[in-house]
Amino acid sequence: MSAILLTGGAGYIGSHTALALLRAGFDVISIDNFSNSSDEALKRVQQLAGRSLLSLPMDIRDEQALTKLFAEHEISAVVHFAGLKAVGESTEQPLAYYDNNVAGTITLCRVMQQAGVKRLVFSSSATVYGDAKTMPIVETAPRSATNPYGQSKLMIEHILEDLAASDTAWSIALLRYFNPVGADKSGLIGEDPNGIPNNLMPFISQVAVGKRTELSVFGNDYPTKDGTGVRDYIHVVDLAEGHLKALEYVQQHSGIDAFNLGTGVGYSVLDMVQAFADKNKVPVPYRIVARRPGDIATCYADPGKARQLLGWQAKLSLDDMVQDSWRWQQQNPDGYQ
Amino acid sequence: MSAILLTGGAGYIGSHTALALLRAGFDVISIDNFSNSSDEALKRVQQLAGRSLLSLPMDIRDEQALTKLFAEHEISAVVHFAGLKAVGESTEQPLAYYDNNVAGTITLCRVMQQAGVKRLVFSSSATVYGDAKTMPIVETAPRSATNPYGQSKLMIEHILEDLAASDTAWSIALLRYFNPVGADKSGLIGEDPNGIPNNLMPFISQVAVGKRTELSVFGNDYPTKDGTGVRDYIHVVDLAEGHLKALEYVQQHSGIDAFNLGTGVGYSVLDMVQAFADKNKVPVPYRIVARRPGDIATCYADPGKARQLLGWQAKLSLDDMVQDSWRWQQQNPDGYQ
Repeated sequence: MSAILLTGGAGYIGSHTALALLRAGFDVISIDNFSNSSDEALKRVQQLAGRSLLSLPMDIRDEQALTKLFAEHEISAVVHFAGLKAVGESTEQPLAYYDNNVAGTITLCRVMQQAGVKRLVFSSSATVYGDAKTMPIVETAPRSATNPYGQSKLMIEHILEDLAASDTAWSIALLRYFNPVGADKSGLIGEDPNGIPNNLMPFISQVAVGKRTELSVFGNDYPTKDGTGVRDYIHVVDLAEGHLKALEYVQQHSGIDAFNLGTGVGYSVLDMVQAFADKNKVPVPYRIVARRPGDIATCYADPGKARQLLGWQAKLSLDDMVQDSWRWQQQNPDGYQ
Repeated sequence: MSAILLTGGAGYIGSHTALALLRAGFDVISIDNFSNSSDEALKRVQQLAGRSLLSLPMDIRDEQALTKLFAEHEISAVVHFAGLKAVGESTEQPLAYYDNNVAGTITLCRVMQQAGVKRLVFSSSATVYGDAKTMPIVETAPRSATNPYGQSKLMIEHILEDLAASDTAWSIALLRYFNPVGADKSGLIGEDPNGIPNNLMPFISQVAVGKRTELSVFGNDYPTKDGTGVRDYIHVVDLAEGHLKALEYVQQHSGIDAFNLGTGVGYSVLDMVQAFADKNKVPVPYRIVARRPGDIATCYADPGKARQLLGWQAKLSLDDMVQDSWRWQQQNPDGYQ
């Protein structure tokens, strides 16, 4: 049986997708350079699934290794997660972002093309909408970048669009994630950021567990219901399910399509803090600080296209998000270490 | 003495710039993968200059070789010409364009950063203005891409902008070429396209010399004086001079600046045909055919910024362009072969 290749399979979304794929009966190969992830995540995935996958240490920029991989294994499709993802770091080290994300994707696609494997699900991001003016955001909204990380995702979308236009045998889904949070119900796998978390939920969790003193809330004077930024948080287990649906879709269609993966519902920072504190019965001290440059007031998806074409929609609730995040954090206060 | 490194130094613009640099007293190293150029061009450059340069067969995607090059030679600045440049081919083989142009530039910049060489003059193109609405075009005009070749140039501009923003030690000039034509007065070096020329002037020359039956003029119903497309043709010797001025500029400034290199004057296709035929006293049979998708009516530069900041402006005339193109074509009917 042919396998699904995950790049960056040991990461936060990769590991949850690996689990969903194993549970759905797929054979899975993961490659990861473990620059920002741990093989422990995939050990736990196998434990949870009761099945094994093949985890190989490999960098997507290593053309020779990739070529050998495609020669030695029958691969039917690729789900491409691998990439750097910290906005702030990207402005300091843009070449690392363009090299890992853009050059890495070019190399991956060249090897896939050579091997005749032309089904691809790509981890894009709602960041490609830049400073979107209209909410909810539909997939046809104008795209722009506000930092090198976002620029790298936008460039990859353009490259994949040109690739699909050049050769109708390609079938590509661009999955534009909104704000993934939560963890598998088991509490065995979850988000394990390096250093100070860039995202809200791991920050809240680390404050709740006592690793950090308080949460900084960046601005409470936005034109939102409570003045704090509103985002479309989506449970990572729902997101993983979206990848399975996208894989089905690329098996049955050709060309390229973008899909928003969000719930369509926006929650404010204070909504998240309160839900986390109330549901988990744990205090989350926070302090309002200045706005962060580049942040927008509100961002949430129109998830209608994914519902219609992929038959997918988010099912898990805000309570699931905060409870599952907390379970993971409590059971793994230092992540996979 | 430290040298100037040219990537793609054996190409059309690279070889003319190599000659100008040698004549101005610079030490020159050229690397080229000769995928679309000939080392014979650089042999002739040395003959014309009466001085030698170092020509090495090397691909900019070869990180190891580049690293060794920077370790073994003292390089003060890089003029980066290397890249694929055929619009039509780029739509058929986008990955080759993104790999050579974008990934190649990322690798080059990573090696430069590592070596502490942070002065760069980059071969961009007026194609980054996409379907510009206002003429003449100023450097602050909106940018967009209409094909993978143009997209690759635009991506590189974005990458270099982010790089300059991340580290003020970088000094980068983006040179946006309009339509380079002509050749060195000697007739020893010139444009040597593979196969059917993509650009007007080599096509005219090949028709005039009898290699092709007639010129196809793509549309005569554009809103221009004679209905044919109007472009800003610039003599390659002027263009080479612009690179010298840009090199001086990046030695004295930091940050990143874009410069149009054009004359500011637009000529129609029929202007060029007539000037070529009249001045060179040779017939250029042509036929009007359908418009080519993606072509715009009119495109010419505002070259004011290059004049003000680089102290550069084009000096050579339309007569020089058509005479020098013809001399090269007559003396080298089969290019460098």
